[in-house]
Amino acid sequence: MKITKDVAVSTWSRGEKANSQRKVVIEEPLEVYVDEIFAVTLMRTPGDELNLASGFCFTEGLVNCRSDFASVGYCRDIESNRVNVIRYNPEKLPSVSERTISSRSSCGICGSKIIDDLESMLSEIPTIELIGPDQLVLLMNNLKDSQEIFKDTGCTHGAMIASIDSSVLTFAEDVGRHNALDKCIGSILMTGKLDSATIALVSSRLGFETVEKAVRAGVCVLAGVSAPTSMAVDLAHRFNLTLVGFLRGENMTIYTHPQRIES
Amino acid sequence: MKITKDVAVSTWSRGEKANSQRKVVIEEPLEVYVDEIFAVTLMRTPGDELNLASGFCFTEGLVNCRSDFASVGYCRDIESNRVNVIRYNPEKLPSVSERTISSRSSCGICGSKIIDDLESMLSEIPTIELIGPDQLVLLMNNLKDSQEIFKDTGCTHGAMIASIDSSVLTFAEDVGRHNALDKCIGSILMTGKLDSATIALVSSRLGFETVEKAVRAGVCVLAGVSAPTSMAVDLAHRFNLTLVGFLRGENMTIYTHPQRIES
Repeated sequence: MKITKDVAVSTWSRGEKANSQRKVVIEEPLEVYVDEIFAVTLMRTPGDELNLASGFCFTEGLVNCRSDFASVGYCRDIESNRVNVIRYNPEKLPSVSERTISSRSSCGICGSKIIDDLESMLSEIPTIELIGPDQLVLLMNNLKDSQEIFKDTGCTHGAMIASIDSSVLTFAEDVGRHNALDKCIGSILMTGKLDSATIALVSSRLGFETVEKAVRAGVCVLAGVSAPTSMAVDLAHRFNLTLVGFLRGENMTIYTHPQRIES
Repeated sequence: MKITKDVAVSTWSRGEKANSQRKVVIEEPLEVYVDEIFAVTLMRTPGDELNLASGFCFTEGLVNCRSDFASVGYCRDIESNRVNVIRYNPEKLPSVSERTISSRSSCGICGSKIIDDLESMLSEIPTIELIGPDQLVLLMNNLKDSQEIFKDTGCTHGAMIASIDSSVLTFAEDVGRHNALDKCIGSILMTGKLDSATIALVSSRLGFETVEKAVRAGVCVLAGVSAPTSMAVDLAHRFNLTLVGFLRGENMTIYTHPQRIES
């Protein structure tokens, strides 16, 4: 079972560009079926799948105790990316449909299938705009300075979208990191500034959904304070997005399409 | 519009307990209707609701451009906790039901309604176990030391559940913070250790769902490295859970039921 994988990266440190390698954590979908009915797709790190599925069913109220489970096991044909939970007495327990469970549509059984399915909605980022590493450093400082709710509470994520000349088009904070980015994208969509959107920055880690939203908004570069997942790297690679992680101080790690970042 | 609120807390710092106040960020549900059909409940920080709803519809592929919106506005009777998005030509756009969107069941229009609805699933934590602040400090150090995937990738959250005598019952890491806790809860559920579970620790912030899972597992204390949200505090207060935030070094902030923490 693979939990991490090595990816080739470019790094900027003290103004110097270099080639290197970094480990990224594997992010893969797990489909959970309850009483043979599809219940949820969880984007997770491989390992402990049976505990994850049983814990999820318990904390979501689909079962109330261990003896409510008749069995929890991998689906035979799919192995570790699909778990089937059979409840002992489904008649006495809340049905899956009574408790609408979060899910993404069009989830397949593996990350590459999900990425394939997104081709109907996402377009490859076409332009090759050159962005200076200093631009990213200054914009990230601007993002941090703007996070007034975070300064008060330590509990929000920030997102910012800027144009090629570093003009800030929109900024938002939210308790949910995806909400902060959606607020920014909604703002530039509704004010007609989508065509100017070139650089997106987030204060958080870079998961699959964050990259999906950035590609949908059509920016060329997505930069975050922290690490990307394997699926984030795969998705950015596929749709020609430059993905920058660990943008801290004057350092950064470029996971995909580094040709856009030049001083 | 309130974005933060002050809450009374107890702090431990260098072995000294004191009473103080902290700001927490407001976490409240926003219901989004598309073409008058319920689409999703987003747990969010108040503000920018129309951008959030329009950005969400765009990044989820429910609309493809600004002119697809006939209108985006607050529902008249509910004001800022419900947004109605009307699409210009729903026939040509993906239907809400075609793209099953994430949601929690039993979401009402405000946080207190959601907490009320959880009374059918959650029980008040009954026992008053005394936990030493030093126990929490040592367990959090143990959690950090155990996070091998994080050390490699910087991209996972850790969770741990321990008994009253600080024996570690389970530990898990995952790219999703809720997954890490569900893996732990599934593990103790399936090995019959739920009754021994007393202290849960997480490497992340403390949102509403994290507290919900901890109460469901019946632990007395939930401690995290970072900040709680308003709904996390409200839920912990209601179900008699001791909620500890900013557990860093030998310092911590106790947001609810501090009587359990004594040196």
